[in-house]
Amino acid sequence: MLQILGLIGSKWSILIIGQLRDRTLRFGELHRTVNGISQRMLTLTLRQLERDGLLTRTVHPSVPPRVDYTLSELGATLLDSVVALGEWATTHRQEINDNRSRYDATHPRQPPS
Amino acid sequence: MLQILGLIGSKWSILIIGQLRDRTLRFGELHRTVNGISQRMLTLTLRQLERDGLLTRTVHPSVPPRVDYTLSELGATLLDSVVALGEWATTHRQEINDNRSRYDATHPRQPPS
Repeated sequence: MLQILGLIGSKWSILIIGQLRDRTLRFGELHRTVNGISQRMLTLTLRQLERDGLLTRTVHPSVPPRVDYTLSELGATLLDSVVALGEWATTHRQEINDNRSRYDATHPRQPPS
Repeated sequence: MLQILGLIGSKWSILIIGQLRDRTLRFGELHRTVNGISQRMLTLTLRQLERDGLLTRTVHPSVPPRVDYTLSELGATLLDSVVALGEWATTHRQEINDNRSRYDATHPRQPPS
């Protein structure tokens, strides 16, 4: 349960799953549409999602090989909750940023650790 | 958006928010009910959730002081999605573990990094 939440709870997994809603994307397309993700983190997250059976990786025998990613049936069952989380974050972003500013103004900074 | 997903997407945040559904808990109670969390990680995650305005921290002036945590109104709006994720993870845990075993049996191990 913890391990599974650890995966589906990662922000990168949430963003990748959201991008694969209703479409198939190649590695390079995912790299462009998931803002801020490094190639390495994208590679690792895709591998974890494939390992868990949440997405399907298809290698087309072209030159150079084309690799497609698409949500599996299992991945699709996760989509509603993931989309809901993303929409919640978008809706409440400003409110949360305001809360953070207010908190920081009234709390002494903790020593870095 | 990324920062916000980074917080609400952490497994510990998800588990803590789930535990605070419909009830107020003290630090020690959270530490006992959120399996596997260290005191330090619980402290850090609670501080982040408080900073974001997702929960309310109340210090009662007893000896020793009692500190309660409860979901804020904003935190309560996140509850449905969080509970849905947790239920998804519980429902599909076995299937995902099977997928992982199958993947590991058919893929050479990656070098550690």
